[in-house]
Amino acid sequence: MFRYERPVRFAEVDAARIVFFARYLDFCHDALEALFAALPGGYPQLTMVRGVGIPSVHIEADYKAPLRYGDTALIDVSVERIGARSVTFRHALSRGADGVLCASIRQVVVLCRLDELAPVDIPDDVRALLSQHLSLP
Amino acid sequence: MFRYERPVRFAEVDAARIVFFARYLDFCHDALEALFAALPGGYPQLTMVRGVGIPSVHIEADYKAPLRYGDTALIDVSVERIGARSVTFRHALSRGADGVLCASIRQVVVLCRLDELAPVDIPDDVRALLSQHLSLP
Amino acid sequence: MFRYERPVRFAEVDAARIVFFARYLDFCHDALEALFAALPGGYPQLTMVRGVGIPSVHIEADYKAPLRYGDTALIDVSVERIGARSVTFRHALSRGADGVLCASIRQVVVLCRLDELAPVDIPDDVRALLSQHLSLP
Amino acid sequence: MFRYERPVRFAEVDAARIVFFARYLDFCHDALEALFAALPGGYPQLTMVRGVGIPSVHIEADYKAPLRYGDTALIDVSVERIGARSVTFRHALSRGADGVLCASIRQVVVLCRLDELAPVDIPDDVRALLSQHLSLP
Repeated sequence: MFRYERPVRFAEVDAARIVFFARYLDFCHDALEALFAALPGGYPQLTMVRGVGIPSVHIEADYKAPLRYGDTALIDVSVERIGARSVTFRHALSRGADGVLCASIRQVVVLCRLDELAPVDIPDDVRALLSQHLSLP
Repeated sequence: MFRYERPVRFAEVDAARIVFFARYLDFCHDALEALFAALPGGYPQLTMVRGVGIPSVHIEADYKAPLRYGDTALIDVSVERIGARSVTFRHALSRGADGVLCASIRQVVVLCRLDELAPVDIPDDVRALLSQHLSLP
Repeated sequence: MFRYERPVRFAEVDAARIVFFARYLDFCHDALEALFAALPGGYPQLTMVRGVGIPSVHIEADYKAPLRYGDTALIDVSVERIGARSVTFRHALSRGADGVLCASIRQVVVLCRLDELAPVDIPDDVRALLSQHLSLP
Repeated sequence: MFRYERPVRFAEVDAARIVFFARYLDFCHDALEALFAALPGGYPQLTMVRGVGIPSVHIEADYKAPLRYGDTALIDVSVERIGARSVTFRHALSRGADGVLCASIRQVVVLCRLDELAPVDIPDDVRALLSQHLSLP
């Protein structure tokens, strides 16, 4: 599991004063960018130099409690499945202060060459990194 | 069914030059705000004056093709189910130029008083509006 | 002068429930994208096909009144100056309902080849379009 | 002076693959939120509990070099002037890797009660905090 922590920002809430539902996906991507930082050059080098990225093909999100300005979000990322070219992540977003689970998000991505968005086999170093965060069966 | 059309904006793509996966949910909300404009005062009056909103509790998104800068997105919203306090929307996002389906998104919302995020029965005028966009069984 | 109109969106306000100060620049860019739509293929063709864009080099913004959710923003764009390679825009953002001026923004951009961000002379068709919106002296 | 450091995120660049000009103001606000974290409860408590915020009334931004995905932004905030009710900040945004100055931004804010957006005298603890970051004359 990989934990990423970040405060909710002043502009991330909506007119109802809770974090806008689309922003939760931004939080998940922030966590993934942090997870990939363990590779040399991180996600920037993977995407911009090696030309490989992880476009999402499927998202399932269950929203359970609001996040508000002043909350810190904890995003716990685990890898549920590593296929030949696809990866399934689980993100558990909780509030730092009381540990309340705010959202549970399942994200399926496909490794792709970004120039033509064509699927590619997961590179070995990416597979090794992801394997470190595999959730136990 | 309700159709909402909007161009992709210059800042809505990511470093891979495709619309960022979280933005698709922003597009869906734009469409819902437009759909609710049929009520007097629209979604602003519903939320800010009457104090009732539609926080999401569940999202399922299938991404099928990219949207890029220069594309116009068509968002076709239909109402799949109207419960006592919850509504299920279906959003089909397609590219204006060629009609290719880019994403299919199912969104379940719960009508809530926004001050305390407590569920409420769907107001009659909201139910009547949503009924106009019910998908046929 | 070129007028662009758009509602404030639910997610564009911040925790103080007013449009976040950075979003005003997004509004200005939305207006410019609409202004450039008068060219064949619009701003997407100019930037993505011809490879020419308008990075900002200078912004001056005076914020005078808040925009809130439910407001419609009117953005009145005029061209103050057209140089060899630079353009100065004036954006007056006002509230649709009462015409109150919310912000006055001066934006200087330089025409650039986007691949290397190198300044280029303003193409003739761009100059002709901008000339239509020149403010009178 | 107060230094805040953050990576450019994957979704913060635009179709030209450089950080969108409006995002620079988001970066500045991130830095201010971090600066105010030195107060008990930070900026969330100041705004949401004490009801006092710092709406911007004036921005001047000079953009000098692009930020791209993979860059880390250093935001150096200094306080240029503390008035009775207003504060002038200077933000120098530079690239972490080579120290190149990317933007210089001057921001004038007015301390306000957020419920009615009415100016208030700068609270003593806020003044004390800001004084620590006063630039030397």
